[in-house]
Amino acid sequence: MPYGDAMNARVRSEERRAEIVQAALEVIAERGYRGASLAAVAERVGLTQQGLLHYFPTKDALLVAVLEDRDRWDAMPNTRLRVELIASIVEYNAMRPAIIQTFSALLGESVTEGHPAREYFTERYTRVRSNLAEVLRTEYGERLPSGLTPERAAPLLVAIMDGLQYQWLLDPESVDMPGAFRDFLTLLGENRQHPA
Amino acid sequence: MPYGDAMNARVRSEERRAEIVQAALEVIAERGYRGASLAAVAERVGLTQQGLLHYFPTKDALLVAVLEDRDRWDAMPNTRLRVELIASIVEYNAMRPAIIQTFSALLGESVTEGHPAREYFTERYTRVRSNLAEVLRTEYGERLPSGLTPERAAPLLVAIMDGLQYQWLLDPESVDMPGAFRDFLTLLGENRQHPA
Repeated sequence: MPYGDAMNARVRSEERRAEIVQAALEVIAERGYRGASLAAVAERVGLTQQGLLHYFPTKDALLVAVLEDRDRWDAMPNTRLRVELIASIVEYNAMRPAIIQTFSALLGESVTEGHPAREYFTERYTRVRSNLAEVLRTEYGERLPSGLTPERAAPLLVAIMDGLQYQWLLDPESVDMPGAFRDFLTLLGENRQHPA
Repeated sequence: MPYGDAMNARVRSEERRAEIVQAALEVIAERGYRGASLAAVAERVGLTQQGLLHYFPTKDALLVAVLEDRDRWDAMPNTRLRVELIASIVEYNAMRPAIIQTFSALLGESVTEGHPAREYFTERYTRVRSNLAEVLRTEYGERLPSGLTPERAAPLLVAIMDGLQYQWLLDPESVDMPGAFRDFLTLLGENRQHPA
């Protein structure tokens, strides 16, 4: 096979993998991970189940790819991140309900026994709390205007983001997720630094 | 059948139903609702699947009983509830991880397509936000010390409770759920009313 054809085959294979991961995100959003089947993912990309297994030999391998995909586009440039940018992320999330639905469903399932995403979420939250504490320290120093330390404020910031997502996914007409998140930032001390 | 026996039969039937609902809570905590099977619930209470169907004809009927059960023990005496009592509820929740796990798993699943608990959670959150706004109004009037209206603070209170539950279930050693919730109450204005 000429070199160019091998290149093309590799590119096509990468594209196919990306399509499969996208289809898996959709199927998990619709049915959860335990309710998702490889057959449903295969059907969505026009493959046989056997064809899908060529790319991902197990359902768990496909889940790992889904989670790694999130880490790639969610990677926070933590040294430069400012609190204001976190509000922008929440605004961006409000424009992509499908992805938020996938990860809210996975987070919910992850607390059940022996779930394959449990370790991922546990480690992710440890890392995110630590990163957010650094962001808050950079912005406010050792005490936020509200009096909390960055380490005590960080889990609240994570909880607000996750908790608002559930209320917003269930009832987008009633819940203004980005507005509520900004209210929380006001509580943390944003407005006291920049009084209106 | 003598009257006393009929009474006993009714009591036994009620007890059996309560046992089945308890078993369903456990199975949902372990596997989620979509991963739960009537066979697993039946096995846990020593019934055949056919015997279980006598009490609950479908899996959805059993879910309804689980959700009604929660509403019974979670009923908030909303006219008298004070903010301080909400902190006590969070402390109580930290002593019953199994129940919190069941409902965190169900909340997560409820955002997937056509989930039988979706309407329940949507209505529940509408009601809980409204009740909590009244609690905050009773405590603080039309503006909280932080400047938020009761209606804008209520979804944050719900989000913090739900979000902290996930972090705590995943990593109970690292996350002090009741302490973090009290930190949030401080942000809302508790301490500014009663300065240390």
